[in-house]
Amino acid sequence: MLQLVAFVLSVIGALMMLPAFADFAVGNPDWLAFAASSTVIVFLSGISYLAYRSGQIALSRRDIFKFVPAVWLISSLAAALPFYLSGLGLSFTDSFFEAVSGLTTTGSTILTNLDGKPPGILLWRSLTEWVGGLGIVVLSITLLPFMKTGGQQLFSLESSDTAEKPFPKTRQYAERIALIYLLLTICCAISYMALEMTAFEAVNHAMATVSTGGFSTTDDSMGRFATVPMLLVSTLFMGIGGLPFLFLIRLSMGQFIQDVQIKIYLAMILTATILIYVSISEDTFHKGITLFVTVLFNVVSVITTTGFASENYLLWGPATVTIFFFLTFVGGCAGSTAGGFKQFRFVIAFQVVMDSLVKSFRPNQVRIMRYGDRKIEDRLATSVMVFSFLYAGTFIVFAVIYSVLGLDFETAASASATALANVGPGIGGVVGPAGNFADLSNAIKWMLCWEMIVGRLELMSVYVILIPAFWD
Amino acid sequence: MLQLVAFVLSVIGALMMLPAFADFAVGNPDWLAFAASSTVIVFLSGISYLAYRSGQIALSRRDIFKFVPAVWLISSLAAALPFYLSGLGLSFTDSFFEAVSGLTTTGSTILTNLDGKPPGILLWRSLTEWVGGLGIVVLSITLLPFMKTGGQQLFSLESSDTAEKPFPKTRQYAERIALIYLLLTICCAISYMALEMTAFEAVNHAMATVSTGGFSTTDDSMGRFATVPMLLVSTLFMGIGGLPFLFLIRLSMGQFIQDVQIKIYLAMILTATILIYVSISEDTFHKGITLFVTVLFNVVSVITTTGFASENYLLWGPATVTIFFFLTFVGGCAGSTAGGFKQFRFVIAFQVVMDSLVKSFRPNQVRIMRYGDRKIEDRLATSVMVFSFLYAGTFIVFAVIYSVLGLDFETAASASATALANVGPGIGGVVGPAGNFADLSNAIKWMLCWEMIVGRLELMSVYVILIPAFWD
Repeated sequence: MLQLVAFVLSVIGALMMLPAFADFAVGNPDWLAFAASSTVIVFLSGISYLAYRSGQIALSRRDIFKFVPAVWLISSLAAALPFYLSGLGLSFTDSFFEAVSGLTTTGSTILTNLDGKPPGILLWRSLTEWVGGLGIVVLSITLLPFMKTGGQQLFSLESSDTAEKPFPKTRQYAERIALIYLLLTICCAISYMALEMTAFEAVNHAMATVSTGGFSTTDDSMGRFATVPMLLVSTLFMGIGGLPFLFLIRLSMGQFIQDVQIKIYLAMILTATILIYVSISEDTFHKGITLFVTVLFNVVSVITTTGFASENYLLWGPATVTIFFFLTFVGGCAGSTAGGFKQFRFVIAFQVVMDSLVKSFRPNQVRIMRYGDRKIEDRLATSVMVFSFLYAGTFIVFAVIYSVLGLDFETAASASATALANVGPGIGGVVGPAGNFADLSNAIKWMLCWEMIVGRLELMSVYVILIPAFWD
Repeated sequence: MLQLVAFVLSVIGALMMLPAFADFAVGNPDWLAFAASSTVIVFLSGISYLAYRSGQIALSRRDIFKFVPAVWLISSLAAALPFYLSGLGLSFTDSFFEAVSGLTTTGSTILTNLDGKPPGILLWRSLTEWVGGLGIVVLSITLLPFMKTGGQQLFSLESSDTAEKPFPKTRQYAERIALIYLLLTICCAISYMALEMTAFEAVNHAMATVSTGGFSTTDDSMGRFATVPMLLVSTLFMGIGGLPFLFLIRLSMGQFIQDVQIKIYLAMILTATILIYVSISEDTFHKGITLFVTVLFNVVSVITTTGFASENYLLWGPATVTIFFFLTFVGGCAGSTAGGFKQFRFVIAFQVVMDSLVKSFRPNQVRIMRYGDRKIEDRLATSVMVFSFLYAGTFIVFAVIYSVLGLDFETAASASATALANVGPGIGGVVGPAGNFADLSNAIKWMLCWEMIVGRLELMSVYVILIPAFWD
């Protein structure tokens, strides 16, 4: 297990050399912070890797539950180091918040005046999202199905119900995922450059887009580049980031697999866009196709949990606020970089509800619930229920705590929701698309970090280790 | 089935004679509206009763699903008649809204300037809540367990899993419930009179208290009578109204039965009260014990879905708003007059979550989930899940629609929640404790009526008849 942690850490450490070069190139002294962090982390993790290396990786069920939260926590600490050491003068809390927000691909930021920041910091923020997005996709098709976190077992590569070791084909899939992920990022960056971004802006935004993270290099987020073609390109790549990577892998092999959640995903995007489009009052400055694309972009941004904003959409009227609030919870497809409740759980919930309603007046009817062509077992339905209760419970408990600590209802509720679903912006002035998380108290920032990590790791996989019996 | 509907209708019609007498006594011409409505309804339902009377009542499973929503709908139409015919000049929408709000014991009102209203109307409002409260308690221990609505089968009098006919001991229990309910109301009224209410105020508020309905005879609600002893008396009787009537029946027979939901119910009341009490800023005009009792009263009012308010508690600060928003969903115990999610579902959800978390690292452990000393079957857990999804889904869909129709986020979300949980007030200016539902559009009022009825009847029992296959 320590071998894997060391491997992940060494990747993160090595990536820090990129912002070090960027800052060195423009003569910013932060290059030292990155270079020093990188050296220390690579050195330590390298030694650990060699020390704990063994012939094969064999994780017990219990090891996996320890490994997943541990690797995210340790990675966040490592990623926070250059923020803390940089010339920005960030507190440890703020450094950790920014790192967690990046690695969980949430995209909430405590930095203001992004346009004046040195390139190293900006690049490091995008890189944390990029590597975090890759990490969660690999995790979601390797370990999460094995952990049975809220129904993800539906998307296991092999029947992990019986296998004790989850790794047979993993490496080969992980490499393929990384390749597709890299290619998508490159395509996205080239498209951005072809429109009006500089190379640096394009690379950063491409990483934040494909990872559905949402960090930007400017305070205006995508508002700086809000032309119709640019928004469409961004919408496309965010949309792809919210698709299941298994679907993309198969597509790259020339196979087209049906997956019900993709249909629901597209239907939800369209429904929300149309509802907002028709509810917006006549007197906005956008019209027709520009308005539609702008709405579509911001809807896709929230539903894929990216969190880019082309403008302060909360000014569009009451319906927009309400719809964006509820969209915060939705999320993309399972096996994608998107967070949230995820589409496939709506499918399963709907099947269970219909089954139960029909059986209430036809108790003896034999019905089989299906997800696509797979039978929905009772255990799977239970997993989805457990996920739902934990999701709602976590959301409510933290919303109440944030309120007791002084946030108003809208801010408290949407801060809790946006962190848990790894979206980024919420509604209301402080945490909305035009706001900033910097002004929140340290206690709230730490709790938001907890929600981001718990949400990113699909809740159950973290809550398990809080049960005393786990450690017996 | 028609025999039962006719019986319920004749009771409602007969009760209309009470406000007729009240208005006649003070010389208000509305007495005619009540007397005429009463005569017509009693006459028609009497004829129907005689026509459809048969030796025994035998309802098929399907009949029950038709009967339950039908009886609530027809009763609401009947109860709306005197509102419509009265001298208040109410529209049909407003009359129906007020009747539904009464019979579902919600307590949202479209009437303003209550203090200037004739006694007949005020008494009729209280009576609709009182008879509605009695109706739902009888329903919840007779038909609802049989309909398996969201886990209520846990509280069936007999094993209705096997019995096709749900009526063996019903009549005897229904009579006992009515007796206890009447005695509670009398005790409550006497207590209110002993403090500072007039006999008329005491009778009306006692009916609204025990039924956890929350209509008042004054625009200030309980604010008019907000002394510490008065609030404590009201808290006590609302609290009893939120208890399971099976528990009260047994208590009246000298037996004390353990019921886990009662513990959770009391724990939630205490937690919410303390959280709000500590979060309220120093500079309110209440202090110490007065403040605590005031907080306790308003918490119990919302958690029991009564909806009395001793003042505009939304002014107490952000934590209060958030906590009251989430309290709106909670509700009281199963088998009580309270609506909402209900405590026992929290118990079952917690058991299912813990079971699933432990099994994720000990897959072979044999665990039995329990509610008190009863085993939680998988079917029961599924029922609770289905209820939860329908509850969340209904809440969200209508909140979004209300927003698209122009309500702001807080108002839309809390209007949807407060109607569905049969509470009464929500948060925000319009639907909050200091607001009034009169200003909402007719479309929204009709949808709120739908939510009140669906919520009152525990969702599943209504949604079943919307499935096309039900009518095959």
